[in-house]
This record gives sequence, structure tokens and C-alpha cells, in this order.
Amino acid sequence: MNKIEHIGIAVKDLEQAGKTYETLLNTECYKTEKVESEGVETAFYRVGESKIELLGATRDDSPIAKFLEKKGEGIHHIAFGVEDIKAEMERLKNEGFVLLNEEPKKGADNKLVAFLHPKSSNGVLVELCQEIKE
Amino acid sequence: MNKIEHIGIAVKDLEQAGKTYETLLNTECYKTEKVESEGVETAFYRVGESKIELLGATRDDSPIAKFLEKKGEGIHHIAFGVEDIKAEMERLKNEGFVLLNEEPKKGADNKLVAFLHPKSSNGVLVELCQEIKE
Repeated sequence: MNKIEHIGIAVKDLEQAGKTYETLLNTECYKTEKVESEGVETAFYRVGESKIELLGATRDDSPIAKFLEKKGEGIHHIAFGVEDIKAEMERLKNEGFVLLNEEPKKGADNKLVAFLHPKSSNGVLVELCQEIKE
Repeated sequence: MNKIEHIGIAVKDLEQAGKTYETLLNTECYKTEKVESEGVETAFYRVGESKIELLGATRDDSPIAKFLEKKGEGIHHIAFGVEDIKAEMERLKNEGFVLLNEEPKKGADNKLVAFLHPKSSNGVLVELCQEIKE
């Protein structure tokens, strides 16, 4: 893990939350993106080498909508940057961590991503994140 | 906010969680510290310019014990590094954020810290963190 790539925060109203985080972080949103397959819309803010990713639901049956219903607004996951996502998935699987996807998938912000089940990391949903080189 | 200084994760068993995070992050714990006034023991791991801070309770009436009882293990707060904590507290107060302490206080890892109430930041407990220069 070479850095905290981003922290994902689930919010009910992306526009309101976006204004709050622009003020809090004293920086403008540099990107918004919808990932239709996940039913999520996102807004990104830079903080040092990391990002804050606000996550809003685009439909009621999406994972973020379910999270909001169950737990309310708040931190949803931590994403760590990795050089080689397949090697890192293999290493963690061998160490007993539970992967939520067996193969890397395309995530927001031009990344290959994979998730670890929170039960193997003390209640924390962990994302691995590798930049896709063009 | 110049970086994500650390992410605080509340855990039931600091020794077990420490082993898990050493494996997950592929790095050794570089510091442990008790802050008796807060009833908390901590273990720190470096990830890029940031840290993961595991938080265990040292007594049943501590804030971490109460958090674990109410919400279970998981992410407790995000701490952002700031240059001038008093100026940043003033700025955020004027913007309508709710401060949990009016004056900076001494935190773990040689820092002056202040917290913002989660209700003004979409359910996220935010810590401001200024390094104490020796």
C-alpha cells in the first residue's frame, strides 16, 4: 500500500455535501462522475496526495442507498493505492483476507479496484486501487 | 487542510487488530501510545504521507468504548493536517461548523488537536491536527 488513495463518504444530497466539503477542505471539487453500474454519483476533492470522494446514490437499490438506509451518512470505505492490484489481491487472499471481487474491476476516476470484506479488517471496508496507465 | 494526517479506527482488541493491519498494510507498527485522559491506547502505521491509527479502549466509560458499544468496530474519525490550528478553527467556526472543543488540546503522536461535530460534516467526525514543533 503506497498511500491512502481516497476516503469514500456516503451522503444523502451530493450537492449540499459538495458545498460543505468545499468549505471544510477549502478546495474546489475537481471532478464529478457517475458509475451507472454501481448506482453511484461521485464528487472528488484533493487533500495532499489523497482525495475525498463523496458518494451519492442514483437509485434506491444501489449499495450506497442501502448503506445510507442502514447506517446513515458517514465514512463508507478507505481506498489504498497499490502498484500491482493483482499481486496485492493474491498476497492478501493468501493471508486470509476475504476479497469481495475475485478480479479487479473498473472503478471511478480511472482506476482498477477490488474490495476486501469488512469482517477481515475490523469493520473497515477496504478498497485497493491501481491507476490505469493510458 | 494540507493532507490526511491519519484515519482513526476503533477496535476491540488492539493486539489482534495490530497484527491484522501489519499484514494488510505490509508495514510494522512504528509507535504505540496511551492517552490516559481519553481512556485510549493507540497503534500507528505509516501509509504514504498519512497514518492509520488503531484505537482501543482502556476503560469502559471512555469515548472509544462507547463508540464500540454503539456502532461496533470500524472507522472512527478522519484527521486532517493543518499548519495553524487556531486559524483553521476560527475559519471553520465562522463558516458554521460546530467545534467540539473551543481550544486546541494535546493529542497522541505529538499533536495539537480539535474536533468538529459530525452533524456539520455529513456524519463524519473530523479532527484537525497540528504538529507541535519542538
